[in-house]
Amino acid sequence: MLKDRFDRLREKGALIHNITNYVTVNDVANMLLACGGSPIMADDEAEAAEITALCDGLNINIGTLNSRTIPSMYAAGRKANELGHCVLLDPVGAGASHLRTETARGLLREIRFDVIRGNISEIRALAEDSRNTKGVDAAPSDAVTEENLEEAISFVKGFARQTGCIAAVTGAIDLVSDGGSCYVIRNGRPEMSRITGTGCQLSAMMTAFVAANSDGGCFEAAAAAVCAMGLAGEIAYTHLLPEEGNASYRNRIIDAVFHMDGAQLEKGAKYEIR
Amino acid sequence: MLKDRFDRLREKGALIHNITNYVTVNDVANMLLACGGSPIMADDEAEAAEITALCDGLNINIGTLNSRTIPSMYAAGRKANELGHCVLLDPVGAGASHLRTETARGLLREIRFDVIRGNISEIRALAEDSRNTKGVDAAPSDAVTEENLEEAISFVKGFARQTGCIAAVTGAIDLVSDGGSCYVIRNGRPEMSRITGTGCQLSAMMTAFVAANSDGGCFEAAAAAVCAMGLAGEIAYTHLLPEEGNASYRNRIIDAVFHMDGAQLEKGAKYEIR
Amino acid sequence: MLKDRFDRLREKGALIHNITNYVTVNDVANMLLACGGSPIMADDEAEAAEITALCDGLNINIGTLNSRTIPSMYAAGRKANELGHCVLLDPVGAGASHLRTETARGLLREIRFDVIRGNISEIRALAEDSRNTKGVDAAPSDAVTEENLEEAISFVKGFARQTGCIAAVTGAIDLVSDGGSCYVIRNGRPEMSRITGTGCQLSAMMTAFVAANSDGGCFEAAAAAVCAMGLAGEIAYTHLLPEEGNASYRNRIIDAVFHMDGAQLEKGAKYEIR
Repeated sequence: MLKDRFDRLREKGALIHNITNYVTVNDVANMLLACGGSPIMADDEAEAAEITALCDGLNINIGTLNSRTIPSMYAAGRKANELGHCVLLDPVGAGASHLRTETARGLLREIRFDVIRGNISEIRALAEDSRNTKGVDAAPSDAVTEENLEEAISFVKGFARQTGCIAAVTGAIDLVSDGGSCYVIRNGRPEMSRITGTGCQLSAMMTAFVAANSDGGCFEAAAAAVCAMGLAGEIAYTHLLPEEGNASYRNRIIDAVFHMDGAQLEKGAKYEIR
Repeated sequence: MLKDRFDRLREKGALIHNITNYVTVNDVANMLLACGGSPIMADDEAEAAEITALCDGLNINIGTLNSRTIPSMYAAGRKANELGHCVLLDPVGAGASHLRTETARGLLREIRFDVIRGNISEIRALAEDSRNTKGVDAAPSDAVTEENLEEAISFVKGFARQTGCIAAVTGAIDLVSDGGSCYVIRNGRPEMSRITGTGCQLSAMMTAFVAANSDGGCFEAAAAAVCAMGLAGEIAYTHLLPEEGNASYRNRIIDAVFHMDGAQLEKGAKYEIR
Repeated sequence: MLKDRFDRLREKGALIHNITNYVTVNDVANMLLACGGSPIMADDEAEAAEITALCDGLNINIGTLNSRTIPSMYAAGRKANELGHCVLLDPVGAGASHLRTETARGLLREIRFDVIRGNISEIRALAEDSRNTKGVDAAPSDAVTEENLEEAISFVKGFARQTGCIAAVTGAIDLVSDGGSCYVIRNGRPEMSRITGTGCQLSAMMTAFVAANSDGGCFEAAAAAVCAMGLAGEIAYTHLLPEEGNASYRNRIIDAVFHMDGAQLEKGAKYEIR
């Protein structure tokens, strides 16, 4: 049950090392605190491995990757692998530049990730590589809709199998697959796309959910995090005053996670398993 | 009409590449989303030009410039020029250090900017160069007031002519000139100066306004963005609870832009053209 | 009186140079503006000393230290010392990695700090050095409680004497000592620990308090800042709506400082001097 996954995180906590972009990092930290985790940010190569060793999980987000932080991602990833820690990749902007695409691919080759979470365009950009096609521009990155859902599920399952990771593709409909089955999740609100960083926040929270459930239930935990984020968006929306927009909505989503517990998540989660 | 400038942005959208400071970057991203634009942040030299090529406009803000990001500003600026994209410079702290002043001047020499937006001290620091005076310390950086308004308008017009840019000098009274005429804008509230990053947010929003109107009306679009920011400050102020201060005011200003449309802007804008 | 320390800051202002982490930097800037100070962030070695020279105080926070910014901390610190400016160290994560511990220790050797503010674990990690023990892992970093208060006060006094700084150890009970006496402060709320960056914000505000009182009353000013932060946490808590959590609480704490004055601080401060 999703409930158990969230309860476990609330009980045990999870200290998460984040090498993440500076755009949304503050919201990422507050979201981790809201869900029962704790954040550490450290991106210098001289300490990346040592900091990761103290933690329960590692969240690598390439949103503002640069020549100084990319080696830190590798160093932290290798140490996390060595210690058996949960590691998540958020390939922000994969497909938008060679640096992003190649960095994400390089990380996927060298580091064993438990979870990859991105939007459909980012995941397609990475999947192209596995198929040995050229570049990423050829693939029209279509949103997942009810119409193309079958194909999308099949794609996400295939990507999960190819990479050996839990693959989480989030958007209007969210798909989370371990290669065998696929959660199809319909929580959330379209207005969430008008806030910067909801994806980054989800990646961090998902790392905490999975890390706290690493002794079993990682797949369910990843799905639970996606449901929690979407449900928080729904709850927060009901608290918005008429004059409030995306800045206040951002705060209210984090607030909603702060007050959420496993029972509320279980009740509010809207998903099917295919 | 200002209305058309904002309506155009809402209709077309505008993807803006921001090389900006890490202090206010999250608010910059949310403000872009609030006004109908979309943000991308990327500051590594290895991808700066490639990312800019995907975008409609480039916002260069030197607020936390450093040895790693300065070359990225040049690389992105050159590519944006090559592609005819709208480019804006926010010379944060020009005059406060040689690094800032010289970087802003160097960028002005090498990159063709459509708009420069800063406070009066920053713009005076850059103007000194054109006049070949030494340093920036000699010039008392006076606020624009009703008393010195004539001189200030003349200065801003001259700066716009010298640089070939639209010059936007914001403060209690805002001036936006294309070298020929000058918008004198009296929107806004003094409390906005107690929030970090309202200038940075405006620069990003202005880049989006101008980019969406690049086929005509850039000057009016720049003025429209300034009016929109000031008007949002006025609207947000009416929504503040008695106990709320600068942190909540920050959110409410972004929220006000989120809900604003061209008609509201047209009605609330307070300006004259001189 | 604490009142005078805050009133002085409100009257005189204090421009604070922050070399600080990118996680909480926006809240740090807004908190400085809320309390009557002004922020400048600049972390490139090429301008660090020059920017500090313009300011009244320097706040060095090692929360996301890296190979590029560490030399800037030294450069700014030396210049601030040369000019007799107030300098504060926030040794975020000292003890968590060698890079952090050694950087904090190195800064303490080379730079004369007026104030060091950290949590008990961080300060213990630094104190180990003075005692010439090996590493920091041996010391269980216990929270300051009513039970171990005597020992903790003695420790903080000793650390202040050893370093020649005002030592501020914050947590459920806050201790601020100049080596002779010790403020024991009981303001604040446990929920503050669920917000990222309250420590960083306090360090910045404390730098402003001390800088504005550098002609006398630095010790009292440091204690006043701690009381102000805790009191703001108490006031903000009363303004929270039932659905609001850590994200809104963060804003409301800054808002509470924005509206606070010396008289309110004097009345609400809960401390004894031991």
